[in-house]
Amino acid sequence: MVHVSSIDLHSLDSNPSNLIQAERKSSKLNIDEINVFLESTPEGAKLTDEIIDQIIHDPVIRTGIDYYESTKNEHRENTARKIARMSLYLENDIKIARKQFRKDVVKILQMSDSPIMTHRDTVVFDKRLSLTGNIDPQLGTRIGVHLGLFANCIRGNGTDSQIKYWLQERGAIFLKGIYGCFAMTELGHGSNVSKLKTIAVYSSETDTFLINTPNLTATKWWIGGAAHSATHSVVYARLLVDNKDYGVKTFIVPLRDPETFQLLPGVFIGDIGAKMGRDGIDNGWIQFKSVRIPREFMLSRFTKVIPGSPPKVISEPALEQLSGYSALLNGRVNMVMDSFRFGSKFVTIATRYAVGRQQFGPSLESEEVQLINYPLHQYRLLPQIALVYVMSPMAHKLADKYYNTLEELYRVGNDKEMLLTVSNKLKDLFIDSASLKATTTWLCAQLIDELRQTCGGHGYSSYNAFGKGYDDWVVQCTWEGDNTVLSLTSAKSILKKFIDLSAGKKITTNNSLDYLNSKFIMSVLNGSEDKVSSLKSSSDYTEIWAVIIIKLIYHCTEIISKTNEYGSISKLLILVSKCHSFHIMLKNYSDKLENIQESYISDDYTRCVMWKIYKLFSLYYIDKHSGEFLQFKIFSPEQITDAVQTELMELLSEIRNDCIGLTDAFKLPDGVINAPIGYYDGNIYHNYFNEVVRNNPTEKDGAGKPPYHQMLTTMLGRGYEFDDRIPCNSSMFEKLSK
Amino acid sequence: MVHVSSIDLHSLDSNPSNLIQAERKSSKLNIDEINVFLESTPEGAKLTDEIIDQIIHDPVIRTGIDYYESTKNEHRENTARKIARMSLYLENDIKIARKQFRKDVVKILQMSDSPIMTHRDTVVFDKRLSLTGNIDPQLGTRIGVHLGLFANCIRGNGTDSQIKYWLQERGAIFLKGIYGCFAMTELGHGSNVSKLKTIAVYSSETDTFLINTPNLTATKWWIGGAAHSATHSVVYARLLVDNKDYGVKTFIVPLRDPETFQLLPGVFIGDIGAKMGRDGIDNGWIQFKSVRIPREFMLSRFTKVIPGSPPKVISEPALEQLSGYSALLNGRVNMVMDSFRFGSKFVTIATRYAVGRQQFGPSLESEEVQLINYPLHQYRLLPQIALVYVMSPMAHKLADKYYNTLEELYRVGNDKEMLLTVSNKLKDLFIDSASLKATTTWLCAQLIDELRQTCGGHGYSSYNAFGKGYDDWVVQCTWEGDNTVLSLTSAKSILKKFIDLSAGKKITTNNSLDYLNSKFIMSVLNGSEDKVSSLKSSSDYTEIWAVIIIKLIYHCTEIISKTNEYGSISKLLILVSKCHSFHIMLKNYSDKLENIQESYISDDYTRCVMWKIYKLFSLYYIDKHSGEFLQFKIFSPEQITDAVQTELMELLSEIRNDCIGLTDAFKLPDGVINAPIGYYDGNIYHNYFNEVVRNNPTEKDGAGKPPYHQMLTTMLGRGYEFDDRIPCNSSMFEKLSK
Repeated sequence: MVHVSSIDLHSLDSNPSNLIQAERKSSKLNIDEINVFLESTPEGAKLTDEIIDQIIHDPVIRTGIDYYESTKNEHRENTARKIARMSLYLENDIKIARKQFRKDVVKILQMSDSPIMTHRDTVVFDKRLSLTGNIDPQLGTRIGVHLGLFANCIRGNGTDSQIKYWLQERGAIFLKGIYGCFAMTELGHGSNVSKLKTIAVYSSETDTFLINTPNLTATKWWIGGAAHSATHSVVYARLLVDNKDYGVKTFIVPLRDPETFQLLPGVFIGDIGAKMGRDGIDNGWIQFKSVRIPREFMLSRFTKVIPGSPPKVISEPALEQLSGYSALLNGRVNMVMDSFRFGSKFVTIATRYAVGRQQFGPSLESEEVQLINYPLHQYRLLPQIALVYVMSPMAHKLADKYYNTLEELYRVGNDKEMLLTVSNKLKDLFIDSASLKATTTWLCAQLIDELRQTCGGHGYSSYNAFGKGYDDWVVQCTWEGDNTVLSLTSAKSILKKFIDLSAGKKITTNNSLDYLNSKFIMSVLNGSEDKVSSLKSSSDYTEIWAVIIIKLIYHCTEIISKTNEYGSISKLLILVSKCHSFHIMLKNYSDKLENIQESYISDDYTRCVMWKIYKLFSLYYIDKHSGEFLQFKIFSPEQITDAVQTELMELLSEIRNDCIGLTDAFKLPDGVINAPIGYYDGNIYHNYFNEVVRNNPTEKDGAGKPPYHQMLTTMLGRGYEFDDRIPCNSSMFEKLSK
Repeated sequence: MVHVSSIDLHSLDSNPSNLIQAERKSSKLNIDEINVFLESTPEGAKLTDEIIDQIIHDPVIRTGIDYYESTKNEHRENTARKIARMSLYLENDIKIARKQFRKDVVKILQMSDSPIMTHRDTVVFDKRLSLTGNIDPQLGTRIGVHLGLFANCIRGNGTDSQIKYWLQERGAIFLKGIYGCFAMTELGHGSNVSKLKTIAVYSSETDTFLINTPNLTATKWWIGGAAHSATHSVVYARLLVDNKDYGVKTFIVPLRDPETFQLLPGVFIGDIGAKMGRDGIDNGWIQFKSVRIPREFMLSRFTKVIPGSPPKVISEPALEQLSGYSALLNGRVNMVMDSFRFGSKFVTIATRYAVGRQQFGPSLESEEVQLINYPLHQYRLLPQIALVYVMSPMAHKLADKYYNTLEELYRVGNDKEMLLTVSNKLKDLFIDSASLKATTTWLCAQLIDELRQTCGGHGYSSYNAFGKGYDDWVVQCTWEGDNTVLSLTSAKSILKKFIDLSAGKKITTNNSLDYLNSKFIMSVLNGSEDKVSSLKSSSDYTEIWAVIIIKLIYHCTEIISKTNEYGSISKLLILVSKCHSFHIMLKNYSDKLENIQESYISDDYTRCVMWKIYKLFSLYYIDKHSGEFLQFKIFSPEQITDAVQTELMELLSEIRNDCIGLTDAFKLPDGVINAPIGYYDGNIYHNYFNEVVRNNPTEKDGAGKPPYHQMLTTMLGRGYEFDDRIPCNSSMFEKLSK
C-alpha cells in the first residue's frame, strides 16, 4: 500500500473512478459540440487543442506538481528558462499566423524596409501565452509585460518608424535584442497616472532628455521584469521643456547592457521581494539619477519636441488619450479570457471531486452519499460552471472586437477624421472591457475560493492547485486598472450617457449599450417592462438585467439631484458595472446559442442543457442580488420565493446530471489540471497519494526524522523545570530563611 | 535616496505620517478605555500587553519581514526552534496561573501523587499561544495540535489516571517527554468521524490492540506534527472485539522513539507537502501495519475492554458523546478569538494606509484626496472595524463559558446525574461555538481579502501581511469542523428546538437562544414585532436579527412540510446559523456596553462612538442581506432605501473621524503588525522601502544581475530565426527546385 497506491488490493471502499465513469456513460451531452461552442469556432477549438498538446509535452514548458514546491528563486529561474524556450515558439507562431513557412520570415521582418507588423501576426502566440498562463500564470505575465505592455505602449504612442525600429529592427517583437518592461506605477502613485512624479527634462544643448526620480514616492514600483530581465523600459514621466510641465509622456530608457547585463549608469534597481503569488515575476523598483537619453527615445506619435531656440512642443491632445487606452486595453481584454480559462480549470477539479467524494449518509449502515448529490453542494458548485460557460462567448467576442478595432486604427493611418471615429470605438471598447475585466476577475476569484472550500481539506493542499491558483489570480483584480476604479469609470460613462440622453442630447452607443434608448428607459420607469420579471421567454433572463441597470441609474440620478455628490452613489455604480457585464455576457451567450451556425450545436439535448446553464446563471445572480431586485420592485417577495428560488433549485438538480460532461467539455488534459483530485480518470485518492509520495522524498536520517530533530529531542528530554535547573526552588528559600 | 530612504530631503509630496498624526490629535476617543473593553477586563488588558511585549522582544519568537521570504524548510525549522523556546514560557505561565513562584511547581505536578491539573493551569499560556498565533499562526497550530487536540482528546476520553499519566507524569502538558499529534482525519474520511476505517483489533492472548490501516483511503491524513515532531498520537480507530465492531474509539499509539527520533516498527509516515499556508506545520500521513499497543493505551473513560474469555466491552453511550464535543470544542472557541485578533491586525493596517495614501482629486492642480475620504472607501473599510469590535466581547464570553463549563465537568467527577446536566450545557456551547466558529472565520477571511484590495498593489506584496495572512487564515474555515457542516449542525439544532416548541414540547435553551420562546415567535409571525424595523431603540438593532431567524426557520418548516426533504433548506440553514451569530454577538456587545462597570467606558464621547460601531455592524449586514429582509417583509423597499441605506452612509462619515483612534485602541505594536504600510508612525513609504531594501540584498554579480542571466542574454543575442540557423530557408528551396 505504501508507495504503490495504484495497486491497492485491500480496497474496501467504493471507487471514485467508477463513480465518475458512470456519469460519463450516462450523460447524453455532445461534448465535442460544446467544446467548439466554448472555443468559439472549429478552427479555434483545433488550434487550442494543438497548442495545449505542445505545452503539456514540452519538457521545459510543462508544469507538474513540483511547481507547488518551488521556492521563489527556483520560480524565477524556471520562468526565465521557459521564456527562452517560448521565444522559439514565438517565431514559429508568427509563421503560422502569416501562413508563411517557406521564407526567412523573421529575417525579412527585421529588415528596415519590411512592412509594419500588426496584432494579427502574434495572434497565435497570444493564444499560446494565454493557454500557458492557465498552468503557469507567472510565465504568461513575465512575457506579457514585454510583448503586451512594453510593445503595446510603443505601438500606441510611437511613430511608425519608432514602432518599426524598436519592435522589428531591434527585434523586441521576436523576444530578441531587447527585453522591455513598463515603468508606469510609482511607489506613491498608481491609478492616477496624470500625477506621476518622474521627470524628463529636455536639454536643448545636448538634444537629450534627463530622466530623474525626484523623491522616494516617485520610485518606479512593481515594475515586472525590472529586477532581473529587462534591458529597456518605457518610462512614464512628466515632460518638462523650458520649465513648462507638459504632463506625463512615455520614453524609452535603456536599463541594462544586453550583453553583459550590467545596469547602466544612473539606473538604480532593486528587487521588490516576495509577493502573494506569481513569484516567478521579477518585479522591481527603479530610481533614475540623471539618466540621459536621446530626444528620439521619446515616443512621439502625439507629442513631439522640436529642437531649436526655444524648442517647441507640438501635441495632439484629442488623440493622445488613444494612447492611454491602447497600452492597458490588451491586458484587460486578455483577463476576461483568463477568467474563462482559469475558471474552467477549477470547476473541472471541483466537479470531479464532488462526484468522486462521498460523505455522510442517511444512516450509519448505508454507503456514504456523493457530495454532488447534496442540494447545497449543487448550489455551491453548479452556478460556477454556468459562470464559466457564460463568460466564454463574451471573452472571444471581446478579443475579436479588440483585434478588429486595432486593425482599423492602423488602416486609417494619420487620417485625423477617421482616427476620431476609431477613437470613439476604442472608448466604447474601454467601457465594456473595464466593466468586464473587473466583473470577471472578481467572480473568478470568488469561484476559486468557493470551490476550494467545496474540496475540504484536500483543497488546502498546494498540490490541488487552489492555493497557488488563488494567490496567483487575485492580483488580476488590482493591476492594470484596479477593479473598483475600473467599475466606477465604466459605470460613470454609462451614467453620463443616460444623463445626456435624458437631457435630449444625442449619444453614441455601441451594441452593448443598446438598453440606453429613450423608449426602453421610459417603459422601465413607467413599469411596462414588468412583464420580463415573469421570466417567461428566454430573453427575459437577459432583459431583467437591463431593467435593473436603468432602475439603478435612475436611482443614482435621484440621489445626485439631492446631494449633488458623486461619492454617495459610488457603491451603486459598482453594481451598475456588474449588472452591465451580466447583461452583455448573457446577451452574447444567448445570441450565439440561438444561432446553430454560430453555436455549432446541432444536438437538441445538448442545446437544451446549454439553455439551462444560461437560465441558471441569471437566476443564481438574481437570487444573490434579490435585495436590489426587491428594493426596486422588479420582483415581489412572492416571486422571489415561489418563482426565482424554486426554479433555481430545480435547475440545479437537472444540471447536476450532466456535470461531468459539462466540465469534460473544456477538454483540459491532466497536464493542465495539475491537481490530482481532479485528474480525468477520477482515481482521486491514488493519484493524490502518489503525487504526495513522489514529491516528498524520505528524510536522509530516516523516514520522518527531520534534520532539525535535536531541537525537539533536547526540549522533550529536559529536566523537571527551569527552577530545578537554576537555583530558585523551595529548598533554596528554606535555606535563605534560616 | 536609495538605501537611505529615511532621510529624503527631496520630498515634495505630502507626508502620510503627518496625515495620520493629525487624526490622532483631533480624535477625542479614550483609547485606553476602549482597549480594556476589547480585552474584556483591566487585568486582561494588562496581561495581553505584557505577553505581547515579551513576544515581540524575544529574539527567537519574534517575527519580522524575513518571515515572508522563508522557504517551507526554513519555516519548519524556525517553528521547531520557537516551540522549544515556548516550552520555557509554558512552565513560567503555569506558575503565573497558579500564582505559585516559590515552589518546584512543575516537579510537584509531575509526581504521581500530585493533584490533577485543569484548564485553568494553562489559561495564561493559552493566551500567549493565541497572541503568538496572531503573528505566526503556524507556531500556534503546531503547539495547539499537541496541547489542544492531543491533550484535550486525552482529557475528554481518558480516565483520571490516564489523564494524569500522559499529561503530567509523562510530561505532555509541559511540552516534555512526549509530543502528541491527533490522528483523526483519513484520506477518504473527514467530517463523518463515525465512518473512519482504521481498525484496532483486541487480542485476548496478548491483551493488546493491533492497529492497522486497512486500505489507502484509511491512511491518516493531514495529521499536524506527524511528519516531523510527534512521538505519540491519539488515533481514532474502530474498536473490534471478537469480530464485533464497537465503533470509533481513541487510542494512544507511540510513533517515534523520543530519544533517537526513529519511527517505531509498523509505523509508516510521510510528509504531505506544501500547503496554501502554514507551511511551518509538519502535516503528515500515517499508515499502521500491525502496530501493537497495550490495552491500557485505549482511552477508557466511557468505553472499557475487560480482559477475559470472552473479553467484555463496557460502554456508556449517553456520556460518550461528551468526548466528541470536548476534543474539538477548544479549537472552535479559540478560533472565534483568533478572528477578533487577526481581524484587528488587518483593519489597523488598512486604516493607516487609507489615511496616509492619497489618490485622485477634484482637479489636476489640487492635492490628491486621502483614500479614507471617499465614501466608497469608508464603506469598504469601516464596517470591518465594526466587525472586529463586535466579535470581541463574544470571543471573551465564549472562552469564559468554555472554561467554566469544563471546570464544572471536572468538579462533578463521576456523578452520572450531574454529568448529564453538564453535558446539556456542553451541547448548547456546541451550538454557539459551531455557529460562531463558522461565521467569524468566514467573515475574517472576507475581511482580509477585502482590505487587501483596499491597499491596492501594496496589499499584494508579501511584506504587507495580507497574502500570507489570508493563506494562513482560510484553513480555519475548513479544519476542526468544516464551516458548512458546522453551520448546518448548529442551525439544525435550532430548527429542531423550534419544531419541538411548536409541538408543545418543553425545550432547554441557554441565554443565546432566548428568542426561542412561544411568545416572541408568535409576535414575529403575527407581525406585532414589526416595530423593531423602525430601528428606534438601540435594542432593535439586535432584535431585528432574532426576527429574521424566526422568519427563516418558519419558512424552512413550510418547505419541509411540502417536500419532506432537508436538503432543500440547507442553503437557508447556513443563513440561520449566520444570523444566530450576528444576534448573539450584537447582544453581548450591547449588554457589555450598556453597563459601565462591565464596559469600563466612562467617557461619554467614547461610549457614543462605541454605540455607532454597534449600529454600523447591524446596518451594514442588514443592507448586505436586504434580499432576505425584503423577501420576508421585515422591511419595505422604502425603509431600505430611506432609512437603512441612508443611515448607513451617515454613520460611515461620522465614524470615519475616529478611524485611527479606533484602530490604535487595539494597541498592536509594529512587531505584531509586521507590515510596513501599517506601522504606527504612518511613515508608509519610507518604512516599506526600507524593508524592501533590507530584505533583498544586491545580487553577487552586480545589482540587478541574476545568477541565471545567461539564459536571457543567450536568447536575446540569438540569430535571425531558427530557419536561418537550421537549413530550411528560401535559398535552400530554390536550390532544391533546380
